[in-house]
Amino acid sequence: MALEIFWFSGSGFAWRVLLAAELKGIDYASRLIEASAGDHRTPEFVAMNPRGKVPVLRDGDVVVTESLAIIAYLDRLFPDPPLFGRTPEEMAQIWRFALDFDNYAAARFSDFVLPIYFDAVATSRAQIDAALDDVLRELATLEARLDGRPWLADEYLSAADIAIYPFVEGLLRAAGKPAAASLDLSYMPFGDTHPALAAWRQRIIALPGYESAYPPHWRDAA
Amino acid sequence: MALEIFWFSGSGFAWRVLLAAELKGIDYASRLIEASAGDHRTPEFVAMNPRGKVPVLRDGDVVVTESLAIIAYLDRLFPDPPLFGRTPEEMAQIWRFALDFDNYAAARFSDFVLPIYFDAVATSRAQIDAALDDVLRELATLEARLDGRPWLADEYLSAADIAIYPFVEGLLRAAGKPAAASLDLSYMPFGDTHPALAAWRQRIIALPGYESAYPPHWRDAA
Repeated sequence: MALEIFWFSGSGFAWRVLLAAELKGIDYASRLIEASAGDHRTPEFVAMNPRGKVPVLRDGDVVVTESLAIIAYLDRLFPDPPLFGRTPEEMAQIWRFALDFDNYAAARFSDFVLPIYFDAVATSRAQIDAALDDVLRELATLEARLDGRPWLADEYLSAADIAIYPFVEGLLRAAGKPAAASLDLSYMPFGDTHPALAAWRQRIIALPGYESAYPPHWRDAA
Repeated sequence: MALEIFWFSGSGFAWRVLLAAELKGIDYASRLIEASAGDHRTPEFVAMNPRGKVPVLRDGDVVVTESLAIIAYLDRLFPDPPLFGRTPEEMAQIWRFALDFDNYAAARFSDFVLPIYFDAVATSRAQIDAALDDVLRELATLEARLDGRPWLADEYLSAADIAIYPFVEGLLRAAGKPAAASLDLSYMPFGDTHPALAAWRQRIIALPGYESAYPPHWRDAA
């Protein structure tokens, strides 16, 4: 049976895995599940991931959770293009970027965008403002890193780019929401405030398989 | 110049790296720094890690932050014993255990033990109780995994064991503190409540290099 990837539409952590799979041209079975329908609480799903989180990869008897572990697994099975570098130093820096983002930044991006997505700006204003301060600081670090480099690890696309990209894209989606109209989105227009990140974003959008991995409900609803 | 490891005594994240380095018999320069002296805020340190966190590894021009990235780097340079498995599946499961612990459990262990270490039990009681509920749930998962297995990944010691061990040890240290006397530490005595984890802990304590990596101030002060 083909390798299966279970995901929610719009989950940044799941989107990473889909991007990696598409980029590598892997023939996988896409298992889009719905949190609103409780699909992540079924006995079958909880047996794969007791935490009820996506993404989950199932490859026959092998079940892998945690998005970066899944990408590492896919990279070992399908090494082209390599997403964890070619030298110990590159590998370490790629892990460092991805882990640093997950350990310090990802939750702050979510604290900022989720109240906008769920139209809860008025009641979450203090959280949004505090999170945006942190998001802007993270963006500044990424912008500085990408100034003069096409990719975070340097010359080549890596798991670090793929891990971080969905969260940056989430900021742009949030900016387009009516719920964001009352906010001072100082990161917009993105191409002016963060030109290196904006160019990096365009390079990712141009990757093979990008369209296939795009969250479907983001197309359906503005 | 020898590879350098910068660490705080008692940091679980730093202890992981020291354990890995000792286990592999790496000839490294130990750079014990003091947060209380502001050693993590010096220009030299911030240039290595703008977040001011330990551990940091410096290997000539190569600087690596994030404990799991450092262990991955050491494992690539010094492959014996291998800490990330021998097959894609083992590698994925080892990353999954370590990432899952860091993403869901590590902060809850800290929320529980730090008020005890810092003698702030009375003012942090609600935090401690809530964190302990989560810690007990994580311990139950680990206990079930280790029932009948010597190591988390199965037959062989891996980065998963090394990543999680310092946080389990922290619970036992906390239990011995006078500040914990008023708490109902339902995980004690540990050998009775968690026999598989307690046996796993003894296997880690018996590893080569364990004594050299032990946090020095834990010996000096009860």
